[in-house]
Amino acid sequence: MDRVPLVRIGEVLLVALRMDVGDRLALTLQDDIASAISEQGSRCVLIDISALEIVDTFMCRTIANMAKMSGVLDAETVVVGMRPAVAITVVELGMNLRGVRTALTVEQGLAVLGHRVQSTNR
Amino acid sequence: MDRVPLVRIGEVLLVALRMDVGDRLALTLQDDIASAISEQGSRCVLIDISALEIVDTFMCRTIANMAKMSGVLDAETVVVGMRPAVAITVVELGMNLRGVRTALTVEQGLAVLGHRVQSTNR
Repeated sequence: MDRVPLVRIGEVLLVALRMDVGDRLALTLQDDIASAISEQGSRCVLIDISALEIVDTFMCRTIANMAKMSGVLDAETVVVGMRPAVAITVVELGMNLRGVRTALTVEQGLAVLGHRVQSTNR
Repeated sequence: MDRVPLVRIGEVLLVALRMDVGDRLALTLQDDIASAISEQGSRCVLIDISALEIVDTFMCRTIANMAKMSGVLDAETVVVGMRPAVAITVVELGMNLRGVRTALTVEQGLAVLGHRVQSTNR
């Protein structure tokens, strides 16, 4: 079955959402994230939605649920890469992303979560 | 169309491969990686194959090609997250991953590429 890739970067779990997350995949994703957090001891979840051109109410609720669920498992969540058009839609349709922290880029999301990617060459 | 998510982390481009990369998706992926490197000025490409339980000769060739192409665009490539069974298959079938650097985890791959993820809380 098709799955959303979860990438473990130290204690950060990176979730790269794509366009086609339907109802069933969203439920599997919640399971996968919960398992990954508990098995890998992730402390932070970074949800990258930069590939999403449209976010509907279902997707909003899914993201909010994932953040709540991670919170219950003691992991912080930050949503990164929201496109301007998506931000406008979220506000105009009065969708609820309450309690979900956001950042512009993955680096800024990591910074919010108290991490940074550093080049060791310089 | 379905696409493999590319996540930009600073000057690192993270490619999270999933199970179902077929011929057409592989070609699109090469295009996407090349565009991303040139548009975002990525210096390093990290290909995470931890989701792959099987790697066939086509996938091997695709990965090797992506590494070569990134090299032409002056970006280093490291393949991370290879499963033990995949490593055995690669060797037993005499598949060619010459010129492709590997690391066990994303953090170690970042280290090979001269980056590290650091917690700023401690």
